This record gives sequence, structure tokens and C-alpha cells, in this order.
Amino acid sequence: MGNADFECPHRVAIPPTKPFFESLSSNLKETFFPDDPFKQFKNQPLGPQILLWLKYFIPIFEWAPHYTLDFFKSDLVSGVTIASLAVPQGISYASLASIPPIIGLYSSFIPPLIYAMLGSSKDVAVGTVAVASLLMAAIMGKEVSPVEHPKQYLQLVFTATFFAGVFQASLGFLRLGLIVDFLSHATIVGFMGGAATVVCLQQLKGILGLVHFTHETDIVSVITSVSSQVHQWRWESIVLGCCFLFFLLLTRYLSKKKPIFFWINALAPLTSVILGSLLVYFTHAEKHGVQVIGHLKKGLNPPSATDLAFGSPHLLIAIKTGIIVGIIGLAEGVAVGRSFAAFKNYHTDGNKEMIAFGIMNIVGSCTSCYLTSGPFSRSAVNFNAGCKTAVSNIVMSIAVMITLLFLTPFFHYTPLVVLASIIITAMIGLINYEEVIHLWKLDKFDFVVCLGAYIGVVFGSVEMGLIIAVALSVLRVLLMIARPRTLVLGNIPNSTIYRSIDQYPTAEHVPGILILQLEAPIYFANSNYLRERLSRWITDEEERIKSSGETSLQYIILDLSGVSSIDSSGISMLKEIKKSIERKGFKLVLANPKSEVIKKLNKSNFIEAIGHEWIYLTVGEAVTACNFVLQTWKPSPVAAAELDSAVNSV
Amino acid sequence: MGNADFECPHRVAIPPTKPFFESLSSNLKETFFPDDPFKQFKNQPLGPQILLWLKYFIPIFEWAPHYTLDFFKSDLVSGVTIASLAVPQGISYASLASIPPIIGLYSSFIPPLIYAMLGSSKDVAVGTVAVASLLMAAIMGKEVSPVEHPKQYLQLVFTATFFAGVFQASLGFLRLGLIVDFLSHATIVGFMGGAATVVCLQQLKGILGLVHFTHETDIVSVITSVSSQVHQWRWESIVLGCCFLFFLLLTRYLSKKKPIFFWINALAPLTSVILGSLLVYFTHAEKHGVQVIGHLKKGLNPPSATDLAFGSPHLLIAIKTGIIVGIIGLAEGVAVGRSFAAFKNYHTDGNKEMIAFGIMNIVGSCTSCYLTSGPFSRSAVNFNAGCKTAVSNIVMSIAVMITLLFLTPFFHYTPLVVLASIIITAMIGLINYEEVIHLWKLDKFDFVVCLGAYIGVVFGSVEMGLIIAVALSVLRVLLMIARPRTLVLGNIPNSTIYRSIDQYPTAEHVPGILILQLEAPIYFANSNYLRERLSRWITDEEERIKSSGETSLQYIILDLSGVSSIDSSGISMLKEIKKSIERKGFKLVLANPKSEVIKKLNKSNFIEAIGHEWIYLTVGEAVTACNFVLQTWKPSPVAAAELDSAVNSV
Repeated sequence: MGNADFECPHRVAIPPTKPFFESLSSNLKETFFPDDPFKQFKNQPLGPQILLWLKYFIPIFEWAPHYTLDFFKSDLVSGVTIASLAVPQGISYASLASIPPIIGLYSSFIPPLIYAMLGSSKDVAVGTVAVASLLMAAIMGKEVSPVEHPKQYLQLVFTATFFAGVFQASLGFLRLGLIVDFLSHATIVGFMGGAATVVCLQQLKGILGLVHFTHETDIVSVITSVSSQVHQWRWESIVLGCCFLFFLLLTRYLSKKKPIFFWINALAPLTSVILGSLLVYFTHAEKHGVQVIGHLKKGLNPPSATDLAFGSPHLLIAIKTGIIVGIIGLAEGVAVGRSFAAFKNYHTDGNKEMIAFGIMNIVGSCTSCYLTSGPFSRSAVNFNAGCKTAVSNIVMSIAVMITLLFLTPFFHYTPLVVLASIIITAMIGLINYEEVIHLWKLDKFDFVVCLGAYIGVVFGSVEMGLIIAVALSVLRVLLMIARPRTLVLGNIPNSTIYRSIDQYPTAEHVPGILILQLEAPIYFANSNYLRERLSRWITDEEERIKSSGETSLQYIILDLSGVSSIDSSGISMLKEIKKSIERKGFKLVLANPKSEVIKKLNKSNFIEAIGHEWIYLTVGEAVTACNFVLQTWKPSPVAAAELDSAVNSV
Repeated sequence: MGNADFECPHRVAIPPTKPFFESLSSNLKETFFPDDPFKQFKNQPLGPQILLWLKYFIPIFEWAPHYTLDFFKSDLVSGVTIASLAVPQGISYASLASIPPIIGLYSSFIPPLIYAMLGSSKDVAVGTVAVASLLMAAIMGKEVSPVEHPKQYLQLVFTATFFAGVFQASLGFLRLGLIVDFLSHATIVGFMGGAATVVCLQQLKGILGLVHFTHETDIVSVITSVSSQVHQWRWESIVLGCCFLFFLLLTRYLSKKKPIFFWINALAPLTSVILGSLLVYFTHAEKHGVQVIGHLKKGLNPPSATDLAFGSPHLLIAIKTGIIVGIIGLAEGVAVGRSFAAFKNYHTDGNKEMIAFGIMNIVGSCTSCYLTSGPFSRSAVNFNAGCKTAVSNIVMSIAVMITLLFLTPFFHYTPLVVLASIIITAMIGLINYEEVIHLWKLDKFDFVVCLGAYIGVVFGSVEMGLIIAVALSVLRVLLMIARPRTLVLGNIPNSTIYRSIDQYPTAEHVPGILILQLEAPIYFANSNYLRERLSRWITDEEERIKSSGETSLQYIILDLSGVSSIDSSGISMLKEIKKSIERKGFKLVLANPKSEVIKKLNKSNFIEAIGHEWIYLTVGEAVTACNFVLQTWKPSPVAAAELDSAVNSV
């Protein structure tokens, strides 16, 4: 009875249930090893396999044999260029982190060497990062004052760096790179912009020549602190600062206009440092309110493994800081590596990058370095200078080593105000207002997330901005899951295609049949909503038909193409929907259930309840089958009930 | 050039962009008013509209005019039946919450009256709930001891009830019913089972006749506490307890076997109380270690508005407790109402139910009642006794009122051990092991969530179980979003249908074309994964073709049917994928982008970049178009590059 005479052209396949552990292992593999990294090791004898593993974990073995002199020439140029940036930036960012400037130089010596061996990116230039430096000072400075207890504070910084490294490496080993994915593009744009604003505000201390400054980072505290000390502002410092700022911004502007000026821009920071130092040396400006770096110890990194304060009462705060700056460092480093790789059409492995950054920071924390990553500004210079491989990092490292061994006395007279100008110039590039406008045009919610992150960082704290942005992003995903769209489909004229009547205004209703499409997996989080929404669609359609006098409704076709999976709440929902549809005298028909869905429908006996002949491969076939019944046999209400019971007893 | 000669039968429509505020308001409406509750008020004159609003907010005006004597007969019987349950349960659950037993009776008088007016369910029987009672004692008992400061503790209980009500009502007014949806079916099964186990363990105090007992709820503490007091166990209490437990479980078992015994089961608790009280009265067992309720004050609820301790130093803990028990109460009450409504084929409004429960608890907190909801056990008895409307709640309320006015002295000799037996019998029904087995069979992850909730509650605390279960559920949703499936499609023989070759083993590869289907919205959380996974599919396909010697790959068709939306990270991902596909010399073709997706592709100029003629309505049409080109014009590598640049310059 019913559509028994109708021959269905295609059957919906119910894939066989895989054994539990097989399906578990394939799920785990798909979740944590989507790139199938160990494929190449299969079916290899032991010897080559060991070599492959070595190459896999230490990429330098992979590319070093193919290294050529031409490569070296390019790498030498770019290495020297980034070294000229690394020295002033290292010193500046160390002061952001409230640690001795020399630590910043140390941090540009050992970590790049480690990364050159382990990293899979050819363009990342390793170095300290402004945002993470500021974060360390902001979080840990509240616990231990860097002014009153400099030694204890420094130990905490090393400890936090150690934990950041452990955390980064574990994420990589555990293949949890997906955590970084939850920092969306919009989050990063807003967060970076906010952090750059905050870092610029902190530079007011250097530019204005102030001695005392607030420990808070939010804009209100900083402005209050600055404006309450108007009488301590030093004009010498301000004039010097503005000159250098103008010089640096001009070179930056010029290099953007004409690529020929690229070198001027790349060398501008070092030039500023040299010019500034000479100026102070000859005018003795350090006696007139222009603060200078002062004595820098000669010599390479002293070991600091014994400084790791695992027994400290502040251990917890060090771990927390480590995790936060570790994530921030990764987000920047991995994203930078990925972007340049996409540009040059090679591939970086996110999980391997995490391991490389992690080991780099663990080793760094034992050799007097603090947190390093792959900062965007330095990597961009590296890329523009034409680097070919990670050898440019080795060149930079050697240049910094030479500086440490012989040139530190030259930095004695470097004025802090020059460093402040260098930081401000670097930071202004991170405030990406064009991207914000683009976000507003493209996706309003992404814009809100971005703005939330920015406002959170600037008016609250760096952590608050991050929390706001991540919470908003996750909330959006959850809301999308909780409120999936349901569409009414209509027939595209002269075809067997069925599409949303919202999107295709020409699509036509099929008389007597309501076709609904679900656009998301059916979960506990949306099953109640979907039940209410579907019954509202049906009620609306009944009313529409009543008022227009069309053929009365007989069939509800649910197109499950968009339903990739279903859980136990979803199955219950479908059962209830079926019951309520049948109570109204209609028949529920399913179209195109996917493999996960049909498996679970089968296990829960839903297929038997609805009848296997009421499940079709496409909406088109379902409509044809329904029309077959509608035209050959119009059911009266009583007959419809019979039909139901007949179908139910199948 | 390219497919310009091929006439595309159908075009993908790009819906016009809606103005910002229009699309915002329609999104908000879809999110918070999916049931469109105010539809009936449109186009009505003021008078009827006010009446409709009154009926909407106070449903008793809706159904009272149609109330008949037949209804009343049924409601009277069911009301008296649930009252016989309400009295012993009220007293028992109050002792679970560590408050005077009389409060339990008060709580079955006022709240049912309120609910009868405001509630939209016909079957919910209002009363105190075991889990929420235990939770209150567990959370607040740690702050203020109910033994040492009974008055202060009671004030805290009223305050928490007040905040629970405010929270519930606000959720309803703010249309945030979706929060309750995040407690999945599996979470509730595990949580209820765990809570029932914990409540049963707590009854060991009553059964064993112990005076001292641990304040912790976890199984380890309870077993330790019980086993360390073996010498305080009272055999009189144990014997009495076992007898009544046997009696109650027997009637429960019988009523399940034969519906005729339903009344015996429903009246068993009251019978036990009467029998137990008589026994103690005549044997003076209260002097031999059988603890009794003792004096219960006669009279109706005293006002308690002045007891709300808003100035208390423990206010925060009261608010926290209120929110937790408020959610638990709602989850049970709303789900119970919904289930019975589905059974009788009428509709309850989740948001209105929340407002009803909320106002009921706010009023309750001012009239010496503590938290009430719609407990499953009592509502099931109500339903089985044949209730027709909420009038059964009014009948119960009047019966409880008579008890309060005249019958309280009769409970003086009621032994606590009988109450413990009543609680245990009620709780055993909540441990739904059959459902757990069903979950294991249907969905392994739901089983894990359920088990997590159970173990968390039994071995940790009630809150911990809830947190574990919700965290696992949300984690699952996020993982699903972060790792969506991608499918390779093949042609179902003798059709233009394309389906996953995993699900349909007969589906055939189309030579020279790789068809990939995405099954989820493209978000920041999965865009990196999707990029890697898609390029792996392409590489795998290239290798497969190389080894099998088929026609080499020319086209990659991305079926976007399952992509309901896309954000800015997703757009960047598509752009990168396009670049990398074109660099390999292939052409990217899109099929069936949904309205949200095509709008954003249009805004971001992706359509221009790919060429509007490379976007098709169905996979079938895309394949036809590609085949048209493949057969009429085989591109060489150079020609392919030309093709690309030609397409790009469109």
C-alpha cells in the first residue's frame, strides 16, 4: 500500500557499523593527525626509517644537504639585516618586560640557533615579542616588584619562560595545535591592535622622560599617571623622541611607497641607535634628563638553569603567565610561519612548529633568555631581505654573539627615548585599521569580536581582552549550533533540483508537500529548538494553504543533507517530530541521510518505524514518490490513518 | 575561453544584501523568538489585544472558562493522590535540605497555587525536589552550619530560593531558555543517577539511626563515616527501615507489573507514614533509638520576606546556590512538562514555564517556602491518576492546607526511618540504567558524558558532576566544529547524483575531476584544519591517479551544500586553497553555495576571482560543465596556465 508500487531508483545505503575500537582510532586519527604525518614511514626498512624520523623531527637534516652557496649569499644579507633590528628591539622589549636590557640580547643569541635546527619555516625570524614582554611585566609585576626585588623577579621570568616552553612543546607532542585555531583572525587583529596601543602608551614614559610610571596597562591609568606629572616632563627627551619618531616613520612610509627604500627602513633602527648614542655621548645629554641604557655586561649568556624557581611561593603565577604568553607566542609564531609559507607555496607543520618553539624556550630559560617567538615585524624584514632558509637565523645569532662579545660598551650611551621611538614605530604597524574596516564589511560579528578584544585590552587588561574575544568567538559558535537555520525548499523550474525559496525566489512550492532542510548536526543543544521550529513551519504552511485554497498538505519531506551527525537527544527529537506529524495526518519522508545519521537511525529502530521505503537518496526522488501516491490515490483522513498504521507495522 | 561555450542551465542566485539593522533584527528574532509568540497579537484592536496578553501571561484565564465538572472529577482524584505523596515527601526532602520539616509542608501549599495560575503544563505537579534540596545543604551547609545556626541557615535558604526565582524568571523574560538546552539528555541521565545515588547514601543516616553524620556528599566520605560508627548502629531502626523499604519497593514493583496496583503504589508512602507513626506511638520506639519528627507547628505559612538576608556576609554563596539550584530545578521542571505535553499532544512554552517557576519561587521565598519545581516522580503520579488541568495542583494545595491547619500533631511520632525509606524508593526510580545501556549502544560519546556526570557527582560533588558533564558536552560540540568531516563524492551509476564514496561503495570516481564535500560551516576554528585536509585529499588523489594511470586531474569541485555559513577566516582559507590549487595547475569549481556563503563570497570579491561561470547549482551541473571542457579541449600545462590567467582576469 502507499508507495509500494513506486519503484525507487536508488536506495540509501546504510554503511556497516565499524567495530568500536576501529571507529575510535579512525576518529582520533582524523582529529589529531589530520595531515597523516607518519605515512612516509610505512613499509620502510629500519635503517631508512630511522633517517626519516631524524629528518622528520630535526628538519635541518632534511634541507642542509641541499644547501647551496647562492642560498647562503641571500641568507647572509637577510641575517645581517635582521640582526641590525634584533639588537635595538631586544634591548627595547626587555625594558617592556621590566628586565635588564642585556637579557634581550641574550634572547637573540641561543633561541634562533635552536629554531634553525628544529623549525619547519624558512622565513620566521626568531626574537622577543612586544606583547608577550608586556604581558609578563603586567601579570608578574603585580606579584613581585621588578624594582624592589629585581633578582627574584628575573627568576620568575625565567621560570615562566620554562613553563611556556613546556606548554608549547606539550601542545605539539599531544597534537593539540587546534587550541591555537580557536584564536580567530578577528580576535588576533583586535588583540594585536589593542596590545600595540597599550605598548605605545607605555612608551610615553620614555618619550616624556618620566622616572615614575603606573604599573597598570589600561589607557585610563596611563593617561592619569602622565597628566598628573606634567611638571616632570623633560623637553630634551621629548624633542629627541619626536625627531627619531619622525625619522623612523618617514623611512617606513618611504619603504612602503618605493621598494627601493626597503633597506633604509630595515637599517633605520640601528642607525637611530648609533646616531642617538653618538649625540648623547658628545652632548652629555644624560645629565639633562635624557635617560640612557647604562652599563651592559660583556660576554655570552650565563647559564640560568639554577635560577628556575620551582620552589618559589609564586610558582603558580609563573605557570599561569607561562601558559598565557606561551599561547600568545605560538599564535603569533605559527600564524607568521604559515602566512609566509603560503606565500612561497611550501608547507609548515603546526605541531612541529609548536615543538620547535617549545624546545627553544625551554633551552632559552636555562641560558638566561626570556620568551621568544617568531615576531611578525622581524620575519617580514627577513622575508623582504630575501632569506632562503633558517640559516638567516644562524647569521643573526652570530652577529648578536659578536655584539655580546665586543660591542656592548657602545650601547652605554644609547638613550631610552630612541628605544621608545623604535617600539612605537614597530607597534603602529600592528594596528591594522584597514582589516577592521574589511571585517565590518564582511562579517559584523567578527567585527564585534575584534572590537571586544581591542576595548578589553585597552580599557581593561591584556588578559581581559583575550578572554572577551575568545568567549565571544566560542559563544558565537555555540549560538550557531543552538540556532541552526531551517529552510523551506522549492522546485527550481524545469529541473528536479530543490533549493531554498529564500535564496531562489523562482523556486516553486510543490502542492501537498512541504520540504524542509536542516542545516546543522542535530544535537542536544538544538534539538528542542528544531522541534519547535519545524512544527512552526508546518503550522505556517497549513495556514498558508488554508488561506490560498491549494491542495492540502500530505507529506513533510525532511532533507537531511546538511545533518552531518546526530546524538541521542537528536534521535528523540526526530521520533517526537514523527509522532506529531503523524498525529496531524501527514507522512514524514526523509531525504539523503548521511552515513553517521543513517547508522544511528538504524540502531535506534527509527528506520523501521518510518519504513525504509520512505527514505530517499534525493529530495527529487522523494517528491516523485510522494506525487506518485498523491496522483494515483488520494487518501481520506481515515485512509491516512490506515496508511500510517500500515507503514508503522512494516 | 574555457567553459564559455557551455550553456549553464541554472544560475546560483546571490540574494540581495539586507540592510544591517533588518538582518540583525531578523537574526535576533530567530534566536530568541523562534516560536513567534506574539503573532496572534498582530492586527488586533486594543480591547481583545489586552485580553490576549492577559491570557498569554496568565494561562488560567485561557482554560478556566472551558473548565467542566468532568475535568474536576479527574482533577480531584489526582489532586488528592499527589497530596498523599506531597506530605511525606515534603517532610523528607526538607530534612535533606537540613531545614525544619514544616518548611517542606509549607512549600507544597503556596507554590502549587501560583503555578496553577501561570503554568502552561497540565500535568506538572509542583513540589520540592530531592536533588535541589541536597544541593542547598551541600553548598550552603559548608558556610553556615544548619545545626549550630539554624535560624541564619534558614534565612540563607530563603534568600537562595529568592535568587533562584529571580534567575529563573529572568531567563524566561530574556528568552534565554536555550541555556537549559545545553544540559543534554545524557548529562541529565548521568547527573540524576548520580544525585539519586548520593541521596540514597545520605539516607543511611536515617536507616542506621545515626546521630552524627558527615557533611560531605561523596561516596568515600559517607562510607568512611558510616563504617567508623558501627557501634552506634541501632538495630531497631534498621529492622523498621528494611520492613518499610521492602513494602514500598514491593508496591512499586507490583504497580509496574499490573496497572491495577497503581493506587497501592501511589498511596504507599502515606500508608507507611501512618503505619510507622502508629507503631512508634504504641510501642514508644522513640525511646529505643528510633528517631521521630517531633513537634510540628500548626498553622499556615508565616510570611518570610523579612528573613531574606540581602545584607548577609554570605550573600554571594546564596546567589551562587540560587543560580545552581535554579538551573537544576528548571531543567527538571521544564523537561517534565515538555515530556508529558508531547505525550498528550499539546504544547508547553519553555520561556513561559521558566517565568512561572521563577515567580512561584520568588513568592515562595516570601512565604516560608524553599525551592520548588516540577519533580518527575510526583508529576508521573499526577499523570497516571488522570489529571486534566492544573486544578489538581490546587486540590493538592488545599489538602496540604487542611493538613497544616489540623493534622500536624499526627506527624509527631512519624519515624525518620520511614521517611528515609520513602526517599530511597523515589530515588531508585531515578537511576535509569536501561537508558545508560541505550546510550552506550547509540552514541559512545553521550555515554562518556553520562558516566562523567555520574562519577563526578558520586565521587566528587554534585557541582563537580554538573561541570564535568557540561564541559564534556561543550567540548564535543567544539571538537565537532574544529574537525568537520570532508567527503570525496562519486557518481551513483546511471544518475546525475553524487554521493560520498564511503557511504555508497558503488559510486564511481569521475575521471579528471575530484569532488570534495564540506560538511560544516567554515569558521576560524576549522579553517586551518580544512585547508590542510583539503590539500591532503588532493595530494592523495594525485598519487592514486599516478599509480593507476587514469586521466590526470584537472578540476577540483568543492560541494558547499553543507556549508551553512562562513566567517572572515573561512574566506581567507578559500582564497588560499584557490591559490594553491591553481598553482598546481588545477581549476577550482564551486557547487551549491548557500545564501549566507554566496553573499560573503560576493562581498569579498571571491566570485570575481574565481569567475561566476565556475559556480554551479549542483555537483551534477558542475561535472557536466567540466566534462564539456575536458572532452572538447584538453589543456596542456601551458594552456592551463593561460586558462587560469584568463579566468583570473575576468
